[in-house]
Amino acid sequence: MNNLHDTSVRAGIRIAVVGVTGAVGRVAMGLLADRKWPASRLVVMASARSAGKKIEYRGHSLEIKEARPDAFGGVDAAFISATTAVSRALAPEIARQGVLVIDDSGAFRMQPDVPLVVPEVNGGDVVWHRGIISIPNCTTTPLVMVLAALGKATPLRRVTVATYQAVSGTGAAAVRELDAQTADLAAGRPVRAEVYPHQIAFNVLPQVDGFLDDGYTAEEHKMANETRKILHLPDLPLSATCVRVPVRTSHSEAVHIEFDRPVSPEEARALLADFPGIEVMDEPARSHYPMPEHAAGKDPVYVGRIRRDMSHPSGLALWLSCDNLRKGAALNALQILDEVVRRGVLKPATVVTSGPRE
Amino acid sequence: MNNLHDTSVRAGIRIAVVGVTGAVGRVAMGLLADRKWPASRLVVMASARSAGKKIEYRGHSLEIKEARPDAFGGVDAAFISATTAVSRALAPEIARQGVLVIDDSGAFRMQPDVPLVVPEVNGGDVVWHRGIISIPNCTTTPLVMVLAALGKATPLRRVTVATYQAVSGTGAAAVRELDAQTADLAAGRPVRAEVYPHQIAFNVLPQVDGFLDDGYTAEEHKMANETRKILHLPDLPLSATCVRVPVRTSHSEAVHIEFDRPVSPEEARALLADFPGIEVMDEPARSHYPMPEHAAGKDPVYVGRIRRDMSHPSGLALWLSCDNLRKGAALNALQILDEVVRRGVLKPATVVTSGPRE
Repeated sequence: MNNLHDTSVRAGIRIAVVGVTGAVGRVAMGLLADRKWPASRLVVMASARSAGKKIEYRGHSLEIKEARPDAFGGVDAAFISATTAVSRALAPEIARQGVLVIDDSGAFRMQPDVPLVVPEVNGGDVVWHRGIISIPNCTTTPLVMVLAALGKATPLRRVTVATYQAVSGTGAAAVRELDAQTADLAAGRPVRAEVYPHQIAFNVLPQVDGFLDDGYTAEEHKMANETRKILHLPDLPLSATCVRVPVRTSHSEAVHIEFDRPVSPEEARALLADFPGIEVMDEPARSHYPMPEHAAGKDPVYVGRIRRDMSHPSGLALWLSCDNLRKGAALNALQILDEVVRRGVLKPATVVTSGPRE
Repeated sequence: MNNLHDTSVRAGIRIAVVGVTGAVGRVAMGLLADRKWPASRLVVMASARSAGKKIEYRGHSLEIKEARPDAFGGVDAAFISATTAVSRALAPEIARQGVLVIDDSGAFRMQPDVPLVVPEVNGGDVVWHRGIISIPNCTTTPLVMVLAALGKATPLRRVTVATYQAVSGTGAAAVRELDAQTADLAAGRPVRAEVYPHQIAFNVLPQVDGFLDDGYTAEEHKMANETRKILHLPDLPLSATCVRVPVRTSHSEAVHIEFDRPVSPEEARALLADFPGIEVMDEPARSHYPMPEHAAGKDPVYVGRIRRDMSHPSGLALWLSCDNLRKGAALNALQILDEVVRRGVLKPATVVTSGPRE
């Protein structure tokens, strides 16, 4: 992996990680360390609350700077994984300064002048960036990889998906809440729910993000809209049910896909196995299938339970698990940086014409 | 509930609960106590290992008898919730003795001379029993109630479903395993998986029951086959992904339903609210939706997140939670007993012609 993807390490560029104390930020730091990214070309940032604190990185002690628009001097690229409000306040401003922003929030993803990129799927879209490139929502990324792989066989007609999402997708505070509730229940203490509207320990919440008037959540709309944008299939029918489960890391998804013609499980397995970043894990007789506990801390999107959809003549059903903090966020961001360097489009941004849209 | 359903209490019949030490058996005892079922008309049974032990029931101490074919003298009806092997060994034999068997196992469900009954859906099927009536798998029961309610509007065309199944569906040992693994992880001890092939605490397993050659699990086939039998729709296309989640009690399901014509969420809500045993819980703006933690210990099938399937012109998407031990098992069994008494078909069984089929 490192041999293939260390383009950006060798390029001599200087990057900033904004949100370094968060769940995704910590994983980003680990991935940078794995790549032996030099500390001298790394700036770590967070909110004013964490500014001045030190974090260890490859034997160095890095001081956390406050993420302000005037703090990015000498920075070529910034990965922002904080709140949407932070992304809105920072990204257009520092992009204007010539910093390439790779943004983890939902603030810019659907903006027409912002590429939304999973390099294995639509890496070519980085070339038209105007200073900001968004990474998809952590449930979208593994799904579009699977759909891109299978869509090589024959056109996709419809997708339905039910998710099993880990709490770290909400952030570090949600992981602490799951752990605290689990401990409270074991001790017979009352449970406090602050991050989520209900208890998450030993429970399942059919809500990720807020609800819209049509009864879908924002997360479910994101999955549909982002998938269409990344696959360049603006009319692909997709309906999702997004569900939070008491798992710390890695999202899983039960997916039904309808095609233009029947696609056999064998054909699907071959297409998936050929696709970069996907690992087929499909030996049910040995109980060998994707699971969040196995996927956590690993790079691939794991796909298994690949079978005919017995309810549709041209349908497939499958199951996937993927580390939401790695390929679902930090790893995808670093791969975008590699892609940008490799294609020679890490350049001072031209003016970003419009502000973020709601 | 008790006023409507205490037909069998008043009928003066004598019942046996087989598997009284198991997860479902314990819930059955609680439901009988709620109905003030007299201890004098209750026989409790389990395996030889538990025989002779005492359990408390409404101020009485009941001695557990070993569940053997010769132990059912004077018993009118037996609810068997043990292993499939126990059901196979006991049910045909005691049915021949004239005991009405209500069986929780998968042993007889698809046998053509055995009614498979959810009283709200196909209570009339009890009339053709020949000594054994099966209750459906705990994932099937809430689904068929929803499908029966909505199928009153217009024919069902296709169903896909992803489940979120509680460990108590596997039995009391699985609940202990979830608790032990949770405690071991909190203490930093290694986790042991015995009931399931992998760790279930803080994990999600896309496997319930064993795998068949077509890549589906037996559980997924059960959902399809049992649904078709109960709804009297032998050709209904249905594809399921059955998933175990780290929840103690109550199964949840994300369901996509296609109809002959568009069915609006409003129409669906009205049909569901009218259906006995279903409670609509669908105020997303208040985060008011079905959850296992809420459904546990309650009788209804809770349905919410009712919305247009944005990927299909005649589709609906919805979400349900239901206590797998109550309506999913013990409550449904007692309601069958009520139905049998009410319809006057609690009679000495005629000869059961065929043995259980695999």
